[in-house]
Amino acid sequence: MQNFISVKDVDDINILADKALAYKQNPLLHKSLGANKRIGLLFLNPSLRTRISTQIAAENLGMQVVTLNVDRDGWKLEFEEEAIMSGTSVEHVKDAAPILGNYFDILAVRSFPGLVNKAEDYSEHIIKQFMKYAGIPIVSLETSTLHPLQSLTDVITIKESIANSNYLNLKKPKVVLTWAPHIKPLPQCVANSFAQWINAWDEVEFVIAHPEEYELNEEFTNGATITHNQQEALKDADFVYVKNWSTYIDYGKIYNNDPSWMLTPKSLEITNNAKLMHCLPVRRNVELSDEVLDSGNSLVTVQAGNRIWAAQAVLAEILAEIK
Amino acid sequence: MQNFISVKDVDDINILADKALAYKQNPLLHKSLGANKRIGLLFLNPSLRTRISTQIAAENLGMQVVTLNVDRDGWKLEFEEEAIMSGTSVEHVKDAAPILGNYFDILAVRSFPGLVNKAEDYSEHIIKQFMKYAGIPIVSLETSTLHPLQSLTDVITIKESIANSNYLNLKKPKVVLTWAPHIKPLPQCVANSFAQWINAWDEVEFVIAHPEEYELNEEFTNGATITHNQQEALKDADFVYVKNWSTYIDYGKIYNNDPSWMLTPKSLEITNNAKLMHCLPVRRNVELSDEVLDSGNSLVTVQAGNRIWAAQAVLAEILAEIK
Amino acid sequence: MQNFISVKDVDDINILADKALAYKQNPLLHKSLGANKRIGLLFLNPSLRTRISTQIAAENLGMQVVTLNVDRDGWKLEFEEEAIMSGTSVEHVKDAAPILGNYFDILAVRSFPGLVNKAEDYSEHIIKQFMKYAGIPIVSLETSTLHPLQSLTDVITIKESIANSNYLNLKKPKVVLTWAPHIKPLPQCVANSFAQWINAWDEVEFVIAHPEEYELNEEFTNGATITHNQQEALKDADFVYVKNWSTYIDYGKIYNNDPSWMLTPKSLEITNNAKLMHCLPVRRNVELSDEVLDSGNSLVTVQAGNRIWAAQAVLAEILAEIK
Repeated sequence: MQNFISVKDVDDINILADKALAYKQNPLLHKSLGANKRIGLLFLNPSLRTRISTQIAAENLGMQVVTLNVDRDGWKLEFEEEAIMSGTSVEHVKDAAPILGNYFDILAVRSFPGLVNKAEDYSEHIIKQFMKYAGIPIVSLETSTLHPLQSLTDVITIKESIANSNYLNLKKPKVVLTWAPHIKPLPQCVANSFAQWINAWDEVEFVIAHPEEYELNEEFTNGATITHNQQEALKDADFVYVKNWSTYIDYGKIYNNDPSWMLTPKSLEITNNAKLMHCLPVRRNVELSDEVLDSGNSLVTVQAGNRIWAAQAVLAEILAEIK
Repeated sequence: MQNFISVKDVDDINILADKALAYKQNPLLHKSLGANKRIGLLFLNPSLRTRISTQIAAENLGMQVVTLNVDRDGWKLEFEEEAIMSGTSVEHVKDAAPILGNYFDILAVRSFPGLVNKAEDYSEHIIKQFMKYAGIPIVSLETSTLHPLQSLTDVITIKESIANSNYLNLKKPKVVLTWAPHIKPLPQCVANSFAQWINAWDEVEFVIAHPEEYELNEEFTNGATITHNQQEALKDADFVYVKNWSTYIDYGKIYNNDPSWMLTPKSLEITNNAKLMHCLPVRRNVELSDEVLDSGNSLVTVQAGNRIWAAQAVLAEILAEIK
Repeated sequence: MQNFISVKDVDDINILADKALAYKQNPLLHKSLGANKRIGLLFLNPSLRTRISTQIAAENLGMQVVTLNVDRDGWKLEFEEEAIMSGTSVEHVKDAAPILGNYFDILAVRSFPGLVNKAEDYSEHIIKQFMKYAGIPIVSLETSTLHPLQSLTDVITIKESIANSNYLNLKKPKVVLTWAPHIKPLPQCVANSFAQWINAWDEVEFVIAHPEEYELNEEFTNGATITHNQQEALKDADFVYVKNWSTYIDYGKIYNNDPSWMLTPKSLEITNNAKLMHCLPVRRNVELSDEVLDSGNSLVTVQAGNRIWAAQAVLAEILAEIK
């Protein structure tokens, strides 16, 4: 693996997922693979799970880790080519990235979308500038439109849950991604990325439910059944992935914020005793009710725990090629 | 030891103090005790000594350390049960804590009181939520009402100072905790905790001096002699611990801020050439005069240095039980 | 080496530079020299290159590293002797520094000038307070008036570039430091320090060019040829170091900000195909045009990469004496 930006960087999702699950069994399986190698974790936006789980993953492989909150430990970067830098940006990515490429063996970057300029966000401008100028493998810690470490985690979590259950392999499990209300406009990253991975994985029946205005980019959703009726989607679901996102078409807005889309035990009655997933952080009693999150069917803690193993599998794949 | 929240978590103060002093002699005595174990240092408030000394302590035991400024590296946590999270809090401790419990073997948390709602602060709401939901040992790096790593340090420092002196063991040393002026309302944590530990230790004569309005919670002070006359308290004192705190009864206020309570060489004349202690940071020439802090009798640097060994003894006790 | 604050702390620049270049060949040459030693990196101001390169240098020598953003992880320090601390400073350097000296084996400090009070900035008040009170070796990560790790890097980069070129040793290479426009008042540190080192090194012809009002302190520039004519300076130059600084005489101002001082391919035509240097961050198309920075003659990435080896040579020298 050269970079890890989207599912397209993965040869075989199941092999990568199995590798991750092997690390879950034995975190120190390859504890010297990354010896004398160094990863930089660059945060242009805040992070809790991603920050900690990626650091642990790298350390489990013997790597040294340097974490940098770019805007606060350092300063604002410029991403526009040919910019006349007389504004607030202090350093151009063209200058910063090659140096980070010099200091590190792998560079992992988190950068959220502005949610103002759809064309710019969907061009994945920022991560592409790092890829263009750093000269070393780049790992996405969530970008403007995708969150692949989360999605690999999600696949692992579903795979593991199926393997651990008494689920009879008579039919494909039904996985539903459902929009939920929120109080502020969020990126489409997690939803886009989950859709992209589940479609590429192609081992489950996949349905996406959202109010009419929240249509996602077809580039990611193609292959899934899409409905505007949450109950219809949830019928017989085995896994329900809950997530808010802002509008994609009239970009970055909150249109309908219908509280009836909040997941409750009642809305889940129609499912096949579905497992509940969410990437976290979650707004309790806005996106999901307490009862749903606190029930035995919630996988959210397991899922967040699996972030370590997903990151570790990805870093190991990349290290194998730069060795 | 399961958790380290207050003196109640300690079986025998002297055994723990001796362990700390053994680490002071040989920091790497148990350099593999924490191998392949990881501690998370979670700061909801700023820190200098606590942050660095706890990291060093953990590394001396071979642990890996991840430090997180929760509000700035990540986001604001919610602590209220059943909250409808439509405000500024991004993630509930019910969701964050189990994940941190998954990522780490020990979780250390600093969280100051709001000084607005006494009942809430004194319920130790926040640290208790971490204890309830993290599922791993919790270490206080200072909470709403107590600062046990500081107090263990204080006991060690007194114990060590007595051992190093030619002090003839004819009478119990006299330890005085005296209130001092400050420019803003501070928590009662250090004073509460020092009182709780010195009372539990029960090897010294213990006097607390403060202006009338600054009565502390008796739960912690019971056993100490309390006076509103600083000179009376200081008479023949062997150790003087200086600390400001805001009012406890009419909660979180500055009433009397009488500058005559500032410790000076003159106010110390009546002591038995007392050693001077303070947890730091200290407001020079507000709490204590320069002359007092800069005198050979000041233990403040030794005391702050001992923070490492106190933390190391506590972490070692906890590691011994999770091994 | 006891401390590393300026070129005056260096016995022989060439020996130190060669040591740095040896580490560039073999980063882990002395991988246990700093075992069980700990360095504190204290940032009173932001940093990207300095932060990461110094951490890597220390880790290459086997040291443990703790990084602290003083004002944000901790609180504001007071540097005035005898201050009555009733303002915004929470802790005096007299109290903090000895404790840091207790926690660490080496303390590295970054502190920019205020650019308001020349006498205070040029007294190097802050770093001197750390040197006075910490009791351990102090390394400058850039102070009010100097940036010696950068300057050592610059010497290494020039030395290496000469060695790698087919440069016939018929004449001394010509090194030009030229002022360039900027949008805000910057310290004189990098320019002062570069001048001080190049003059002390004394192996090149050294010319400084700046508009009339930007005269630097002669303490640092003495020995260099100074001109207010950029083209005259650039004639036959082998190395051009570009840097903005604010006025020194009428302190901390931007007087003339003449855009014709921005380096372009045209302004460089008169040079001897000069190599281009800059300490970074650089304002593209303000200080230098894109064409200059993106040309094959730019050494800026190599230069920033060399920051690791400069820091490693300095730390190794200091470690050798505290062993």
